Amino acid sequence: MKFKLADAANIVDGNIIGDKNITISSLAKIEDAQPGDLTFLYLDSYKKFFTSTKASAILVKHDFIKSRDDITYLEVESPNKAFSKLIKHYFKPEYKLSGIDTAAFIHPDAVVGDNAALGKNVVLSAGCRIGSNVKIFHNTVILENVEIGDNSIIFQNVSIREGSRIGKNVIIHANSVIGSDGFGYDIDENKVFHKIPQIGIVIIEDDVEIGSNVSIDRASIGATVIKRGVKIDNLVQIAHNVIINEDSIVASQAGIAGSSKIGKNCYLLGQAGVAGHIELADNVIMHPQAGTGKSIMKEGSYFGSPAKEIKEAFKLEAHYRNLGNYAERINQLEKLVKELQEKLDRK
Amino acid sequence: MKFKLADAANIVDGNIIGDKNITISSLAKIEDAQPGDLTFLYLDSYKKFFTSTKASAILVKHDFIKSRDDITYLEVESPNKAFSKLIKHYFKPEYKLSGIDTAAFIHPDAVVGDNAALGKNVVLSAGCRIGSNVKIFHNTVILENVEIGDNSIIFQNVSIREGSRIGKNVIIHANSVIGSDGFGYDIDENKVFHKIPQIGIVIIEDDVEIGSNVSIDRASIGATVIKRGVKIDNLVQIAHNVIINEDSIVASQAGIAGSSKIGKNCYLLGQAGVAGHIELADNVIMHPQAGTGKSIMKEGSYFGSPAKEIKEAFKLEAHYRNLGNYAERINQLEKLVKELQEKLDRK
Amino acid sequence: MKFKLADAANIVDGNIIGDKNITISSLAKIEDAQPGDLTFLYLDSYKKFFTSTKASAILVKHDFIKSRDDITYLEVESPNKAFSKLIKHYFKPEYKLSGIDTAAFIHPDAVVGDNAALGKNVVLSAGCRIGSNVKIFHNTVILENVEIGDNSIIFQNVSIREGSRIGKNVIIHANSVIGSDGFGYDIDENKVFHKIPQIGIVIIEDDVEIGSNVSIDRASIGATVIKRGVKIDNLVQIAHNVIINEDSIVASQAGIAGSSKIGKNCYLLGQAGVAGHIELADNVIMHPQAGTGKSIMKEGSYFGSPAKEIKEAFKLEAHYRNLGNYAERINQLEKLVKELQEKLDRK
Repeated sequence: MKFKLADAANIVDGNIIGDKNITISSLAKIEDAQPGDLTFLYLDSYKKFFTSTKASAILVKHDFIKSRDDITYLEVESPNKAFSKLIKHYFKPEYKLSGIDTAAFIHPDAVVGDNAALGKNVVLSAGCRIGSNVKIFHNTVILENVEIGDNSIIFQNVSIREGSRIGKNVIIHANSVIGSDGFGYDIDENKVFHKIPQIGIVIIEDDVEIGSNVSIDRASIGATVIKRGVKIDNLVQIAHNVIINEDSIVASQAGIAGSSKIGKNCYLLGQAGVAGHIELADNVIMHPQAGTGKSIMKEGSYFGSPAKEIKEAFKLEAHYRNLGNYAERINQLEKLVKELQEKLDRK
Repeated sequence: MKFKLADAANIVDGNIIGDKNITISSLAKIEDAQPGDLTFLYLDSYKKFFTSTKASAILVKHDFIKSRDDITYLEVESPNKAFSKLIKHYFKPEYKLSGIDTAAFIHPDAVVGDNAALGKNVVLSAGCRIGSNVKIFHNTVILENVEIGDNSIIFQNVSIREGSRIGKNVIIHANSVIGSDGFGYDIDENKVFHKIPQIGIVIIEDDVEIGSNVSIDRASIGATVIKRGVKIDNLVQIAHNVIINEDSIVASQAGIAGSSKIGKNCYLLGQAGVAGHIELADNVIMHPQAGTGKSIMKEGSYFGSPAKEIKEAFKLEAHYRNLGNYAERINQLEKLVKELQEKLDRK
Repeated sequence: MKFKLADAANIVDGNIIGDKNITISSLAKIEDAQPGDLTFLYLDSYKKFFTSTKASAILVKHDFIKSRDDITYLEVESPNKAFSKLIKHYFKPEYKLSGIDTAAFIHPDAVVGDNAALGKNVVLSAGCRIGSNVKIFHNTVILENVEIGDNSIIFQNVSIREGSRIGKNVIIHANSVIGSDGFGYDIDENKVFHKIPQIGIVIIEDDVEIGSNVSIDRASIGATVIKRGVKIDNLVQIAHNVIINEDSIVASQAGIAGSSKIGKNCYLLGQAGVAGHIELADNVIMHPQAGTGKSIMKEGSYFGSPAKEIKEAFKLEAHYRNLGNYAERINQLEKLVKELQEKLDRK
């Protein structure tokens, strides 16, 4: 896949400084780039690679100091956005699967839309309704009465339990589990746990992406709901009756306990935790490893466990690092006060 | 599935205030309930939904203030327990699977009990012994010499390695892995790791439930043991040679490192961590994200990382939030003491 | 599997004190050992089991006090290493799988090496190249153009996405996912996320072991790289473009965010977290639940979140536990200073 840098400049509305006629053979990270590649400066911390990169061309901001003349510059407003735009333009992900494999098991009472593709050993159970252009990769199991909207892609070894409702343009990566029983028990007088049937479902709305090895439990009653545009990373736990509102992100290994509600445009970063039966307002950012047992009703960034507003958290962390100094000063003060007392008593 | 409220009242030993003749069409959460539904007050924090719920009937405690007269009250001692009881009475989970599918692979040297059900693409290897009424869902793989007791349910895409022994009435949810090799290596003088064969097994006793995407490793030697009645949530790590005693709970994303022993009736809550080669006494509660590298031999609640008794942990957290104040007061004291010194010197 | 203790003594270069003629029937942990077993003292904390162990023989250091005369001692320099050596000598893991199962699906354009074994329902796609003696267990799915080197073992229900390159002597445990899309999006002016195609691959070098339920994402561009000898435990997250250098360890439930580089001989212990776009030097140890958002360029042990050098972290933790005392002393100082002021004013 080759393209002319001049064409790329048109796509990203950029300005070429250098050789306007070069052909790009691939996109690459600045530290890996080879002659023929177009690269970019993603973060300031990558500037150290600029002097040594072998790339033939580089996406930079307009004010970038062009200290090398053996590389062609493509000036744009945002190198990151321009780079994404070029990836989207020139590369289509493979996701190769077509037709209904003869080794797929489709129940006669299931309905499969036009142009859908089902891989080998797929199990599609009674009452399922699969939209048009849906791809379901090999060895994925879908139990009864599941709905999947048009253009959705379900990768291999996924398990979808009965009654789940999945929207359009949804992507579910390999080995994830949708609709397993929630973790709900009664405890008796002997401290023995008894399972409470989990009779609800999971609803995943349009444009949601779900990573690999994710667990999303069905509701105890009602529904666990992942709303439009939510993006979920790998190894995430979504417990029964959780609701995640539109355009929020849940990064890898984060977890949300039962019945909690996450607002719109929230970011739960890696390994963050939200306890059960609480609420996060819209636009709340939980930093990596942050945890909260209380509702957070004010938008903003939160850090630590228990989570605090980030400005306050950073102040406290600075004080914490200073504890040795404080302890020493308390010792010193006690000594001085004692001396003062003695001095005063002597006067 | 409809039932008369009067019948429900008998089941939960409750007292109807209002229309004794209504028929309930479903159970629902208070914020989702529709006309015809029976709902309940699970937590005080849900009281805010009482004035607006569309439910026809509601489970409440005897002393609940009945400020609405367009809803029927069903008074009980514990609305939560009553609600669970009704779910258990009126709803049976589906878990639909019957018969031995022709697309299941059963080794001729495996034994399958009466009325067991095996789904499509299930692999049941030589020497396995499966009890009566067991259900093994599609695409689950069971290696050699695994035993599974009566009435157990193994969902889809589960992997059970050779020699695992699983009791009666066990539930294992989708995509979990039982009996993988423990994480055990020797390190040589060049800091290269060499695998130590993991020759033990996993034993899961009766009445255990295991969530989705769980990893339970086989022992290096001997057995990793999950005792009767233990309930394990999704994405949990149980390392080699761990022992979890009866009726304990391990919530989602918690992890227990190698050779540690968890007592009876313990609760490891979400994302909690227990290091290797230590012990937790009976009745220890590890709060979410709590972590311990030392044995905890005294029952009670523990919070934070490193975990502390909760009362102490909360006191320390309060002091921590106050660090800015303390620092300021140390500054102030230093100023005052200096002034005092100068004053005293002048006298 | 029985062996003579005298033979074992030769293998581990040990010295028998007691019955030189006994036959060992198995190896066992000290607390589980039965007559006929050989056991060992793995940690000092296991010494408490010495007086009661039923083992017939025990591996001990030369200076161990031999207070029992009803047990045979096998003196060695390191009981742990000797025990591992004996396990490796006498026990070969089963990993039973041979031949190409007739229920495996092998694309005609895939190449399979000599003596490779493929289980039931395995899907091996076009362009794959599988080395000699490779074992791929049941229900594992391998998409297009994947390479797997000689002697590697892929357990059941694993998903390997297109283009992944896996070395020799690699082990991948059940239900892990290699090469899923990285978590990469653009955000537009309406705060809606748009997927950036993930066009890179995953490279896993020789002698790597990967636990169960692990997620390793393909690079956005270029490659996510796990270098020779790295060992990864269960439920670990490796994001796109991460590089882990030789002979490092990532323990269970740890996670590494996008584009970060981990040095050689690093240990990321359980539930540790490394944020994106940072670097860890060689020989860095992240303790359990430690987390860092900044590069760590100095070798050593790090503790806590945010992670600090362990000596400093332990000092700060000691101060933290002392906060109640400090607060009380500040109160007391304020009282004393006030008294001094009054006293001084009166003089």
